[in-house]
Amino acid sequence: MAERVNHRWALVARPVGMVSDALFRWEEAPVPQPGPGQVLLRNLYLSLDPTNRGWMTENPGYVPPIPLGEVVRGYGIAVVEESRDPRFAPGDLVSGMIGWQEYSCLPVDTLAPVPANVPPPTALNVFNATGYTAYFGLLDIGKPQPGETVVISGAAGAVGSLAGQIARIIGCRVVGIAGGPEKCRWLVEELGLDGAIDYKSENVRARLKELCPDGIDVYFENVGGSILEAALDHLRLRARIVLCGMIATYNDTAPRPGPANLINLVLRRARMEGFLVTDYTPRFGEAAREMAQWLAEGKLRSRETVVEGLENAPAALRMLFTGGNVGKLVLKIARDEAQ
Amino acid sequence: MAERVNHRWALVARPVGMVSDALFRWEEAPVPQPGPGQVLLRNLYLSLDPTNRGWMTENPGYVPPIPLGEVVRGYGIAVVEESRDPRFAPGDLVSGMIGWQEYSCLPVDTLAPVPANVPPPTALNVFNATGYTAYFGLLDIGKPQPGETVVISGAAGAVGSLAGQIARIIGCRVVGIAGGPEKCRWLVEELGLDGAIDYKSENVRARLKELCPDGIDVYFENVGGSILEAALDHLRLRARIVLCGMIATYNDTAPRPGPANLINLVLRRARMEGFLVTDYTPRFGEAAREMAQWLAEGKLRSRETVVEGLENAPAALRMLFTGGNVGKLVLKIARDEAQ
Repeated sequence: MAERVNHRWALVARPVGMVSDALFRWEEAPVPQPGPGQVLLRNLYLSLDPTNRGWMTENPGYVPPIPLGEVVRGYGIAVVEESRDPRFAPGDLVSGMIGWQEYSCLPVDTLAPVPANVPPPTALNVFNATGYTAYFGLLDIGKPQPGETVVISGAAGAVGSLAGQIARIIGCRVVGIAGGPEKCRWLVEELGLDGAIDYKSENVRARLKELCPDGIDVYFENVGGSILEAALDHLRLRARIVLCGMIATYNDTAPRPGPANLINLVLRRARMEGFLVTDYTPRFGEAAREMAQWLAEGKLRSRETVVEGLENAPAALRMLFTGGNVGKLVLKIARDEAQ
Repeated sequence: MAERVNHRWALVARPVGMVSDALFRWEEAPVPQPGPGQVLLRNLYLSLDPTNRGWMTENPGYVPPIPLGEVVRGYGIAVVEESRDPRFAPGDLVSGMIGWQEYSCLPVDTLAPVPANVPPPTALNVFNATGYTAYFGLLDIGKPQPGETVVISGAAGAVGSLAGQIARIIGCRVVGIAGGPEKCRWLVEELGLDGAIDYKSENVRARLKELCPDGIDVYFENVGGSILEAALDHLRLRARIVLCGMIATYNDTAPRPGPANLINLVLRRARMEGFLVTDYTPRFGEAAREMAQWLAEGKLRSRETVVEGLENAPAALRMLFTGGNVGKLVLKIARDEAQ
């Protein structure tokens, strides 16, 4: 066992523009040994999220940057191989900040158990930051009421596709904005959204007017850029804009001008509010219980795009910014794992 | 009396860029006769406000535009000359939408009595839309707490100077942003603000960092443009941006790009919210009572810039956009009036 190798990705440069292979170094290291209160984990799945790029920059804004030379920070699911704490035993499935590597040693305080009755990719989607972001962003910041019109950008992404479904479940009219006919078809035909706009081939402004003739009550923003500007022109009185993310801007090398029409927030008495899911940690259980119920009832569906092989992590991360994934993007670390 | 002339300004074109004399036509018309339920008013003072320019455009966004050829819409104070309704008698001072003219006939339902114990320019400042905008915008949208840091742009303007004082009264640290050393001196030495930034000669971003080392809790926005962007870079966690107006952009002939750093709303979990004072009409009495008390106690000061002569109305309106006024801008319609 001591001779096993831990393959891992280290961050060796800060991103400028699109995340490139040159930011990362493929390393081989000994499998680490757990100290007291720690477990040795064999890592199974990594969650790939837009915020991962932010962690690689000099100033992520809400967490410390990943130090250069260290293993790339990443959240994921692992199986306990060796435990030096009574709270976990070999074979337990846990989630935590395992990093872009095959093995990790982590203090058990930083780990959470993984629900046994859902596949790990689904757990990473619904019962972790992604699901809780969709749930609290939509419900707590957006405060949609039944019958209201909700528009979601990045609607075929991980957070967007959950938020859109939750809005439908509570009785809203939901229009999703996504890239390409296939994603739009999925949103309407599979997830039951009331409409979809293909921002790659359609005029978003004109289609919003058509699909939301009375205006938008809640706009759930994952994208930024020109789509935000179009939405600002179609707000209903007392609209709420949930600022979840602005992925269109994350790879910009120069500041991208913001919307020229913020005055609409005044004219429509509207609110734009940002949030981070970590602020809701004490309420995660509440969201987990309700979403578990919706999953069980078939009202909520989890879709994941799974890429295999730790060596593909940099390329997989880029898929988030090129629209390559549908639903949650997950990296399966070992090609040969059964689970 | 029937031979008296009503001098007035009619709107004859829609503004493009800065409000110019060519938008207006000086007219002489007969003094109108009040119908049943109306009063004939001799107009004394006009309130000049940034929103007046919006009313002249094709699409003000929250009220109908002023029709071309009609008298320019304007709020003001007048004295009743003739009444055809028992609720008002000759000699009563009233406020209402009197327009840019010497005489008006208005239904009494659209008029409000003017407090007798304050000069009309002060009444137009504190006990009308300006004062209520400052009061509800700051307190109800901004929700500042004692000890918090409040930053106000357009701080030497009508709404800004009242909002800044109210923030001081409730125990906040207040920094005002204004144009020129004279206005900045007035804010600190006369109004008691904790600091002032001269955006014409100082680096707003650097000075905000210096004067608000722990960040901004409430940013009261009257200006827009680059000042909003600087403020967005200095938000404290859970900051609130009160979007009151964006006067820097009102004369733009092409859309001006908005702030490139809205992502700060996410990172700081901040809220940006617009409002219109008309939504608070049922609560105006509450604001009036509290501000009357502050005025009586000397805690709140009203400053007005009074321009004389109806013929100067177009030039006076431009002062709002060039920073020509300090405090509330009021037009005294007749040069020879005692009051």
